Amino acid sequence: MESIMIYVPIIMAVVGLLFMAVKRSWVLKQDAGDGKMKEISDYIYEGALAFLKAEYKLLTIFVIVASLALAGITFLPGATTHLLIVVAFILGAFFSALAGNMGMKIATKTNVRTTQAARTSLPQALKVSFGGGTVMGLGVAGLAVLGLTTFFIFFFHYFMGGVWTNSADMTIVLETLAGFSLGAESIALFARVGGGIYTKAADVGADLVGKVEAGIPEDDPRNPATIADNVGDNVGDVAGMGADLFGSYVATVLAAMVLGNYVLRDIIIANPDFTDIFGGIGPILLPMAIAGFGILFSIVGTLLVRIKDNNAKEAQVQGALNMGNWVSIILVAISCYFLVQYMLPKTMIMEFYGEEPKDISSMRVFYATIVGLIVGGVISSVTEYYTGLGKKPILAIVQKSSTGAGTNIIAGLATGMISTFPTVLLFAGAIWSSYAFAGFYGVALAASAMMATTAMQLAIDAFGPISDNAGGIAEMSELPKEVRTRTDILDSVGNTTAATGKGFAIASAALTSLALFAAYVTFTGIDGINIFKAPVLAMLFVGGMIPVVFSALAMNSVGKAAMDMVYEVRRQFREIPGIMEGTGKPEYGKCVEISTKAALREMMLPGVLTIGFPIAIVLLGMLIYPDNNQLVAEMLGGYMAGVTVSGVLWAVFQNNAGGAWDNAKKSFEAGVMINGEMTYKGSDAHKAAVTGDTVGDPFKDTSGPSMNILIKLTCLIGLVIAPILGGHADGHETIVEKTETVVVEQPAVVGQEKSEEITVDRQKDSEGNVKATVVISTKADNNEIKTEEKTFEGTDAEVNSQIEAFKKARK
Amino acid sequence: MESIMIYVPIIMAVVGLLFMAVKRSWVLKQDAGDGKMKEISDYIYEGALAFLKAEYKLLTIFVIVASLALAGITFLPGATTHLLIVVAFILGAFFSALAGNMGMKIATKTNVRTTQAARTSLPQALKVSFGGGTVMGLGVAGLAVLGLTTFFIFFFHYFMGGVWTNSADMTIVLETLAGFSLGAESIALFARVGGGIYTKAADVGADLVGKVEAGIPEDDPRNPATIADNVGDNVGDVAGMGADLFGSYVATVLAAMVLGNYVLRDIIIANPDFTDIFGGIGPILLPMAIAGFGILFSIVGTLLVRIKDNNAKEAQVQGALNMGNWVSIILVAISCYFLVQYMLPKTMIMEFYGEEPKDISSMRVFYATIVGLIVGGVISSVTEYYTGLGKKPILAIVQKSSTGAGTNIIAGLATGMISTFPTVLLFAGAIWSSYAFAGFYGVALAASAMMATTAMQLAIDAFGPISDNAGGIAEMSELPKEVRTRTDILDSVGNTTAATGKGFAIASAALTSLALFAAYVTFTGIDGINIFKAPVLAMLFVGGMIPVVFSALAMNSVGKAAMDMVYEVRRQFREIPGIMEGTGKPEYGKCVEISTKAALREMMLPGVLTIGFPIAIVLLGMLIYPDNNQLVAEMLGGYMAGVTVSGVLWAVFQNNAGGAWDNAKKSFEAGVMINGEMTYKGSDAHKAAVTGDTVGDPFKDTSGPSMNILIKLTCLIGLVIAPILGGHADGHETIVEKTETVVVEQPAVVGQEKSEEITVDRQKDSEGNVKATVVISTKADNNEIKTEEKTFEGTDAEVNSQIEAFKKARK
Repeated sequence: MESIMIYVPIIMAVVGLLFMAVKRSWVLKQDAGDGKMKEISDYIYEGALAFLKAEYKLLTIFVIVASLALAGITFLPGATTHLLIVVAFILGAFFSALAGNMGMKIATKTNVRTTQAARTSLPQALKVSFGGGTVMGLGVAGLAVLGLTTFFIFFFHYFMGGVWTNSADMTIVLETLAGFSLGAESIALFARVGGGIYTKAADVGADLVGKVEAGIPEDDPRNPATIADNVGDNVGDVAGMGADLFGSYVATVLAAMVLGNYVLRDIIIANPDFTDIFGGIGPILLPMAIAGFGILFSIVGTLLVRIKDNNAKEAQVQGALNMGNWVSIILVAISCYFLVQYMLPKTMIMEFYGEEPKDISSMRVFYATIVGLIVGGVISSVTEYYTGLGKKPILAIVQKSSTGAGTNIIAGLATGMISTFPTVLLFAGAIWSSYAFAGFYGVALAASAMMATTAMQLAIDAFGPISDNAGGIAEMSELPKEVRTRTDILDSVGNTTAATGKGFAIASAALTSLALFAAYVTFTGIDGINIFKAPVLAMLFVGGMIPVVFSALAMNSVGKAAMDMVYEVRRQFREIPGIMEGTGKPEYGKCVEISTKAALREMMLPGVLTIGFPIAIVLLGMLIYPDNNQLVAEMLGGYMAGVTVSGVLWAVFQNNAGGAWDNAKKSFEAGVMINGEMTYKGSDAHKAAVTGDTVGDPFKDTSGPSMNILIKLTCLIGLVIAPILGGHADGHETIVEKTETVVVEQPAVVGQEKSEEITVDRQKDSEGNVKATVVISTKADNNEIKTEEKTFEGTDAEVNSQIEAFKKARK
Repeated sequence: MESIMIYVPIIMAVVGLLFMAVKRSWVLKQDAGDGKMKEISDYIYEGALAFLKAEYKLLTIFVIVASLALAGITFLPGATTHLLIVVAFILGAFFSALAGNMGMKIATKTNVRTTQAARTSLPQALKVSFGGGTVMGLGVAGLAVLGLTTFFIFFFHYFMGGVWTNSADMTIVLETLAGFSLGAESIALFARVGGGIYTKAADVGADLVGKVEAGIPEDDPRNPATIADNVGDNVGDVAGMGADLFGSYVATVLAAMVLGNYVLRDIIIANPDFTDIFGGIGPILLPMAIAGFGILFSIVGTLLVRIKDNNAKEAQVQGALNMGNWVSIILVAISCYFLVQYMLPKTMIMEFYGEEPKDISSMRVFYATIVGLIVGGVISSVTEYYTGLGKKPILAIVQKSSTGAGTNIIAGLATGMISTFPTVLLFAGAIWSSYAFAGFYGVALAASAMMATTAMQLAIDAFGPISDNAGGIAEMSELPKEVRTRTDILDSVGNTTAATGKGFAIASAALTSLALFAAYVTFTGIDGINIFKAPVLAMLFVGGMIPVVFSALAMNSVGKAAMDMVYEVRRQFREIPGIMEGTGKPEYGKCVEISTKAALREMMLPGVLTIGFPIAIVLLGMLIYPDNNQLVAEMLGGYMAGVTVSGVLWAVFQNNAGGAWDNAKKSFEAGVMINGEMTYKGSDAHKAAVTGDTVGDPFKDTSGPSMNILIKLTCLIGLVIAPILGGHADGHETIVEKTETVVVEQPAVVGQEKSEEITVDRQKDSEGNVKATVVISTKADNNEIKTEEKTFEGTDAEVNSQIEAFKKARK
């Protein structure tokens, strides 16, 4: 029996997309301003599209190559992966690109409309800019849920006829579905890294020649790199972030489904007649349902984001955003309670590694989702503490700026480093507690619950760069000062939400990676990952190194690309007559082209590193240990763990150090008290702070945020490779059932009762046929152990009933 | 039978110490120069002694508190640790302090003599400064081998009567010996961190006010902080480094002995009658023997370090050092060959985790030692590439300096980060290959071989700061320019050896930690460390965070202490009349006092973090899992792995970034070509490079080098806590012996032969009584398994012979 519940997430996704369409047409109907504004906005729009077009051209080649490689994998001996994974991969990549593209288009259309709205009032400007963000958020979330659910339903019908058969078949469904996630995450990697390099190359290049050398203000239309700079905000902060969260969203739900499948397996082993009103797959559908309802509650949240007072300050705007965010989080929490109660059996038997299987009530799964929601909330506060204006760490950096750039840099680095302390403790606590509540299924559902408000998070995130752009357009169009003041308020709030958004992104990436990691271990069927084996430990080291080297590559890329930009801007200042007087027209397109080319060229090496290393490890491992795929699987697992642990640390370090430097610099705008003197922009201390910000730029906008994708993609690649490593392909699993103590006769000495232990060892071939061997050892008081062994064959259900019958017969 | 071999390392150590005494009296006999030189040298000597005195006073309190805690541990139920561990701990601390003290005394005596020698010739100056280094190196190595061997012999007699009984007794000997290592490493932590903070606070403070504000040159006698700066070189680079390598040396040899004990256990299980000409403990004595011979060959190496040409340049001086170093390394390699052949059985049975026990020939152990020696050599080249003058990375940083401090900093950070790539691959390769050759015993012996030339390494390391000081004295005493030119050549070589020495230190720390980690796993008797268990994974995260936070604390401490220094120097410039004209005398003592106080105050928090966290994890773990010490042991193991992986990464990153910035700045002294123009000191690019160097200073001299000790100490604390976690205390170990296939009757179907598997499960109580249960399962072709089980009690040897008899009787 197929349940209607399987279609519910699709309905929610469609509702989200419809709401998005309505919002989109409302935004587009807003006044886009007059001549100059429109002209600039068109430049930005075209520059952004040109970049995406060039990027997609390159990525098409990548997708073709990767598809061929994936197809190759499915033909490897022993691999259970189905060729359909290639289709899923291509469509995952396509959906991800579509989501990024859609978000960027609306963002580049909204910016000028926000500027225009800011000419009337601040509430209207917020309404327009946040409207654009909402379109982006709902678009990404809607496409993610729609794509993932549709593919799941398709594969579920294709491989299982739409009816639950056994967990091995479902594993094939989910393995194939992993292709969708892999496609999405691969595109996300390039979008994040490419976008990050683009935006910082343009930003740093524009600043170095414009602000520092020529002494003209930021966003001055005479600066040839200024359009590239504004394009960068869109390709980096909007398209990059969109692709990132699209990838996270899909990966999280997928991981939870994979783990749900294993929960189901254990339920069925304990109770072969198990079924529920969802066709027996409630635990697998639950994460999709949470995601679907999350879209609805995000819509509710977005409706609450508004202000009335035209003289509102940052605090009110931030308050409005917080209100919307918290309401959607609380609604998700409530929905989790009902969904968990409705969709899961009252109690489940779960296996905790190295312990006896335990009875877990569905309430514990609910607690795990609450853990995820709490982490999502707390991480924002932690990030805000370390990067927020007026907070202690920022004030300390400001003070240190008075003794020069060196001490400013040291203080910023130290702040970023120290910020790993509460963050890692929070993550460690979340892992531990959600696992304690409901095993790795709990960890995955914690992540799912956290990600359920993705649409809302993304709306808040995207509104920042839109407002930033709106301010830029106001400046370049030489609009009255009050317009810029209004957009500046929005921009300033946007800076804070950018930092907290990064905290949210890394928290979700950390939990998602762990869930994927758990799914990987279960897919390969290894006995955990033992770092006491030297090859595994060696790979833990190698994995730990990757995020560091990746970050360095990204930073160097920004440096190189920025230098290209510097030379071009200098050339234009030198060669175009009248450019500084405003009579000569800068060649904006040249700068856009340079950023585009540099970003595409430089995103290759980090990409190759990310994708190549896990594959290299598997090949090397198989070469050295040709008969020990399990060890190779453990080595890859060690590598994944290394990348995750180190990646989380370096993400937090880089994001927060970068954010802290940025706001330390911003503090000088309103003036700061240093050694009893008010110090402002232009002072030596401010110059030192500007240096810090330059260092922080690639940290917080290029290398730092890329870590999220690096760790998720690494774990996804592992998951896709897993079936080759044979694990569940040879289908060998041993289940130790409960030891029963049967007192056959009153023993002479207490403690010498006759006891028996039942072990079931089952192997499954690729067609789902099960061969189970039951071993019953009986220990008597005379130090003698007797064992009986019997083998059964058939489908999972058949074998289970035979075993039950056999056990009953013995009694 | 007790072998004479056990005393050989002591003899070598005494030879080393005697040679040291001769060298020392030669150095002290050298001319210490005239009035002003002597006066300055006395200031430095007294300042250094004052710091050590204050430090030791504080550390005495620490040692008392830690001793009480350790004593408490021995009384915990189930702990096998003997109270004597407290004595070992105290003496380990004492020896470490003694080694640091001795080294620093000779260094502060040699500096002025080097200055005086430099007035005659460069070869003589090298002879004196390297002579001082040699005294330091031999003193540290001699004391380490002497202390460790003496304690081993004492405990071996105390617990085992000087005769091999069984591996459980030997475990108690080595557990107690671990106290010596713990004491040494604890002192090293404070010496390194305190010294690092001291030296950088003085350096940065002196530079900021002296060079930058007042515009007087480095080491100018008018600068009140100049003596503190020179004292800092001694307490940081000499005493800190000495204590660090003393700790590494002891820990490495200890870890190898612990693993040797387990090698021996497996040998004896396979062959209960095993003995050798070393009283049956060859594998345990081997690492001590390698260390002993290493002292001799280091002496040979030091004798080769000399130059003849008074007009020699850096290259010749470096060449002389390299010659001595390589000769001692090659001699150690040769001695390893003979020692391995002589002291180990031709083949040993070793257990590789998760695999069948293997026959390992002693030649494979030799190969493992070669791996260690190669790593020691290659790491120097790698470090030199990333930090050496004239190399590509440095040139790139120099170029980036032209666009300001921001780009210089980004380039330096990126260089440090990229440098983790070859370094980690080298370490991972070393772990993997030395393990593949001879298991974790191989890893430990690789580390031991590498550390065998510690005396030579330390001589090379210590000669740097001595020459640096000599130059300072020349400057402050206003000696002729050629003197400073000569000491500058030595100083410049010293900068390179300082960087490569740090590479050596982290390589040794990495291998030592892994060996300790392996010893820990074996001590606790856990089944490896499975990061698929969420609490273990959570601790891996927490462990990974610690080095980052530790580094941040150290950096902040330097910042705070430097500010104190700045205020004091400013005050003296303001208040002491005639100070700038050279008529008023600066109060050097006040600055020394400030550095001393700040260093002692600031070293506390990092120390508490390092020591407190492992203990907190164990307590928390025991609270949450009161009945599952094994899980708690795995959690602590996960933490140790996290600290090690992350610590190695951050050490390499910080050391190399710091070294790179330093030499990028130095490049400007000879002039560099930037964009086609020669650029010198005083240019804007140079100023940017100076900013980079300021950031690099705490990186390379405070937080970076502390990582070594952090990871070693963490693993040692784990090792000392191990017995509480019950592992071998409940003495439960299961040995799966080889499966024999006995064809009882010709089977009807091939593959259905009757086979049997023998499992021996042994438990040992704290008095060494063994209870072993032998289970023999026989599988017949009718799917039926029969098992026989029999239990034996007695000593290890008795039980072994009973089992043999039982097995023979069955046949």
